Amino acid sequence: MKKWENLNKEQLLELKELYDKEFEDFKKQGLKLDMSRGKPSPDILDLSAGLLDPLESWKTADGTDGRNYGVPNGVAECRQIFADLLGIPVGQIILGNNSSLELMYNAYMRMYVFGAMGNKPWKDLDTVKFLCPSPGYDRHFAVSQAFGSEMIIVPMTEDGPDMDLVENLVKDDPLIKGIWCVPLYSNPQGVVYSDDTVKRLASLETAAEDFRIFWDNAYGTHHVFDKYTVANILDLAREAGKEDRVYYFFSTSKITFPGGGVSIMASSPASIAEQLKHLSFQTIGPDKLNQLRTAQFLKNPDSIRDHMSKISAILRPKFKVVLDTLENELGDTGLVSYIKPKGGYFVAIDTLEGCAKAVVAMAKDGGVVLTGAGATYPYGIDPKDTNIRIASTYPSLDELTQAMKLLCICIKRVSIDKLLAIHY
Amino acid sequence: MKKWENLNKEQLLELKELYDKEFEDFKKQGLKLDMSRGKPSPDILDLSAGLLDPLESWKTADGTDGRNYGVPNGVAECRQIFADLLGIPVGQIILGNNSSLELMYNAYMRMYVFGAMGNKPWKDLDTVKFLCPSPGYDRHFAVSQAFGSEMIIVPMTEDGPDMDLVENLVKDDPLIKGIWCVPLYSNPQGVVYSDDTVKRLASLETAAEDFRIFWDNAYGTHHVFDKYTVANILDLAREAGKEDRVYYFFSTSKITFPGGGVSIMASSPASIAEQLKHLSFQTIGPDKLNQLRTAQFLKNPDSIRDHMSKISAILRPKFKVVLDTLENELGDTGLVSYIKPKGGYFVAIDTLEGCAKAVVAMAKDGGVVLTGAGATYPYGIDPKDTNIRIASTYPSLDELTQAMKLLCICIKRVSIDKLLAIHY
Repeated sequence: MKKWENLNKEQLLELKELYDKEFEDFKKQGLKLDMSRGKPSPDILDLSAGLLDPLESWKTADGTDGRNYGVPNGVAECRQIFADLLGIPVGQIILGNNSSLELMYNAYMRMYVFGAMGNKPWKDLDTVKFLCPSPGYDRHFAVSQAFGSEMIIVPMTEDGPDMDLVENLVKDDPLIKGIWCVPLYSNPQGVVYSDDTVKRLASLETAAEDFRIFWDNAYGTHHVFDKYTVANILDLAREAGKEDRVYYFFSTSKITFPGGGVSIMASSPASIAEQLKHLSFQTIGPDKLNQLRTAQFLKNPDSIRDHMSKISAILRPKFKVVLDTLENELGDTGLVSYIKPKGGYFVAIDTLEGCAKAVVAMAKDGGVVLTGAGATYPYGIDPKDTNIRIASTYPSLDELTQAMKLLCICIKRVSIDKLLAIHY
Repeated sequence: MKKWENLNKEQLLELKELYDKEFEDFKKQGLKLDMSRGKPSPDILDLSAGLLDPLESWKTADGTDGRNYGVPNGVAECRQIFADLLGIPVGQIILGNNSSLELMYNAYMRMYVFGAMGNKPWKDLDTVKFLCPSPGYDRHFAVSQAFGSEMIIVPMTEDGPDMDLVENLVKDDPLIKGIWCVPLYSNPQGVVYSDDTVKRLASLETAAEDFRIFWDNAYGTHHVFDKYTVANILDLAREAGKEDRVYYFFSTSKITFPGGGVSIMASSPASIAEQLKHLSFQTIGPDKLNQLRTAQFLKNPDSIRDHMSKISAILRPKFKVVLDTLENELGDTGLVSYIKPKGGYFVAIDTLEGCAKAVVAMAKDGGVVLTGAGATYPYGIDPKDTNIRIASTYPSLDELTQAMKLLCICIKRVSIDKLLAIHY
């Protein structure tokens, strides 16, 4: 198939008629599918059925009664599992309840209200700027927006955020206070930050003393094809004498249950002590029984890796459907471009400029709700209106096959209008 | 026994020798007991063993998968139980995770950072003042302190906060933004707010448009002797056209497990909508499996009341030991005064002025850690240094008997020094 930008008007009009018909035929099936969020499918959740088993003991390893008050930083044996899995000293880990977003929001809120390590609270500055590698995760950007930060787009490359730009931006502007990162299998592109990227982030020279890297390792064990790793930023930042700046997050939301997992925050000993001080005013402590339940079920890093390989086996064919359909239907058309994801939860594609919103709207009309166009950019505004996030984890293979067929029809149909408008 | 203030110097010196000896004898037993916090005892926790049972289904009543994302306001059938128990429309209830303190802190934080209903955020005011009925709960006061509010002591009466004072304070000062309340079996005195008190609070004329009542019904089902009730402040506030101002909190921390319960926030439809808007930025949703577990175990208001009567049966003899010992050992001495608690978790006593710190320090030396003197007042400063909170729920009856014996020795011994200093 040749590049569609080289088609003449008649050819485009012929295709327009074809895809109008294909769309109408598709619509008649009455498909109703919500692919807007990155949710695990029921068969993925079934793999964690053991988490619903009776709790063998409410006693922690050191004899503390997990039913009662106390243990603000979380049950030690549960922290130890994640310490071993992630290569972080156990004393630098705090466990939260089921939402790691809540840990991020609270950490951001503390910077805003109280300031960190004696620095001015962000609320007392005229403005705070935050770097947002994009496309990225909408809920990260929403936190910055909630606290009125000015978000600055940093383009993503196949190695992570454009580090030349990052270094240039932060070195002179003390109001740039941080950056959002999903280092392994980034949301939504599935990019793995290169060692060089992580090293440059860890040792960044910033004008702001209280620059913070919000390091959301949400997909830290979510291999789909090969098993990629990402450098240990806490180690690298410590070596660079900048360990306080790393706020590291992780959760079991996509290992066990989003609605019943545990979340993790790690940082330097000093930063963790600061978080715990604030935490002591905010809560009487986390749900320790769920931490015991999680430890009982997950056991150790090896059994987590075994468990994750079962999840990979479910995700792999779904990724294959998405990637194969894109290749087969749109391969040489020049209508989309994308980085092939190395793992994680999503495939992100770029349409021709100014087409993403129209594609998402048309897909919705056809019965498939995709993530809102623009959602992967700060303020929900994709400057070129090109990015579409495909969340393929929830639907069944059949549904996904159908949805991808529809998506490709919509991309073609919308692109035709675009090409006609440009060229004719 | 006659009032000790009428004893002469020789009599006091004789008693001093006696209680020095009693204290030294006691100390030799090597008792080690922490009575600093209001924690349930293991036998109370054992009553909720059913909460550790396997979860019958991860599906909610409306068919939602509780394991997955979603349901930001909490599982409906769990909310319904508390709606029925507390007499609050189910749509006005949000469920949080295990710590209701966290719900209070977050609600306070939102007033501070974002403001409510279009009013100026508290951070943008020169100062915010908060009414603190005292003695009260140290963790409430700590939240106000964390956000830099100026705390104003309001004396407690047997009917709740001194309402004449409250009405006078709030009517002209727009910087007085709220009040902390534990309406049923107040912490630490076990006072029940009278209907008149609740009505006056609900219809308070305040200079501040964004005045908020933080209504922490922490002991809403914690009867010990008779079953007292407290008027429904949401109903009364609605009748007065001031429903938005009530932030109502409740939790199962002291019904089931502090380290594995659920928490509740209720308010007007408009206030709850506002909380949910902020919540959508802060978290991907609560732990729904624990809400299902809680609903499965607690069932309905009647079974909660049955369950609580078993807890009462454990608490009652403990309260009896405390109250009987105080009566027998200190009855007519005039060394302490106290309101007999109607229920809840604590007994609070007032010593002679300037004695509480010394008594708590002496008890610690004798092997019993009490709640720090001053903790029941804002900033941890009890202006007259008289209030001591006795947290009798955790220790066994034997331990408690011993601890109370020690406490009475300490009160007598410290009071002797005080009386000698005043009169001789």
